[in-house]
Amino acid sequence: MRSCREIETTLALPPKSGNQNITQEDMNTADSSMANSRTADEVTTNEILELEEGALRRWLSGDPSGFLEISANDVVYFDPFTERRLNGLVELTPYYEAIRGKIHADRFEILNPLVQLVGGAAILTFNFISYGGNENAMCWNCTEAYRRNDDQWRIIQTHWSFAKVK
Amino acid sequence: MRSCREIETTLALPPKSGNQNITQEDMNTADSSMANSRTADEVTTNEILELEEGALRRWLSGDPSGFLEISANDVVYFDPFTERRLNGLVELTPYYEAIRGKIHADRFEILNPLVQLVGGAAILTFNFISYGGNENAMCWNCTEAYRRNDDQWRIIQTHWSFAKVK
Repeated sequence: MRSCREIETTLALPPKSGNQNITQEDMNTADSSMANSRTADEVTTNEILELEEGALRRWLSGDPSGFLEISANDVVYFDPFTERRLNGLVELTPYYEAIRGKIHADRFEILNPLVQLVGGAAILTFNFISYGGNENAMCWNCTEAYRRNDDQWRIIQTHWSFAKVK
Repeated sequence: MRSCREIETTLALPPKSGNQNITQEDMNTADSSMANSRTADEVTTNEILELEEGALRRWLSGDPSGFLEISANDVVYFDPFTERRLNGLVELTPYYEAIRGKIHADRFEILNPLVQLVGGAAILTFNFISYGGNENAMCWNCTEAYRRNDDQWRIIQTHWSFAKVK
């Protein structure tokens, strides 16, 4: 079985342009002073990516609150361990709280993130790899739908699934 | 192993309200003359559900064109058999064409569909079961993001994954 990393480098992924694969380190070194020279869409795209990466970093340290804090009350949720869609923070919160402190990864990669902007909605998709800890090189597909409310972006739909590994 | 149908009836799904579980038959008997008495959001929600159900019916008869015809050029796509996100109709079309005529189900159910409207975007989520044919009682999670362009709704993101079966 090949690793996810091998898949990434073997497949002919689209050329890296505006949305490049990003790591924790990339986010830390982003130069926010460049915001004025970017288009509004670029600023929004970066804002969405920063929200997601921040929540993921907390998630992989065992803290689900990062995602809970940026999810709307009417968020809906799928992952490979749910038998049906979870509806609302009222269902997602206890689901996340049950695994608080149980998730850990040494590092992760967000591969080829794409943000599709449609007015007050933003559809973020990416492939994801987590390494080490209790999730050794797990390969994921992810879709997050964000909605802007009062200048704050909140997740209204999360869908995690396993990507195929050859 | 329980069937998907058992899962549906065993789990405490939210009360059926505006968005009920629908079948092929429900769609066929919908009364379009009621449109004037419904809100704009209800009309849009029904339009999205009809688009999805029509494409699914063709899909489960081996015809992927239903989905291709309502997908935007910039559609992105995940399913359990892809190693990474597919980007655009340019990648989705050959993927679908390779399985033309190979998919068949005797019947299917769209469970608890929900449409979240955000301006010109509509996020459709549902659980799905197909019965018989070469897909015997397969249980899925599905997210479709639609975008309105010139009064036509087009899919810009599709994410299919397997739901957990106890």
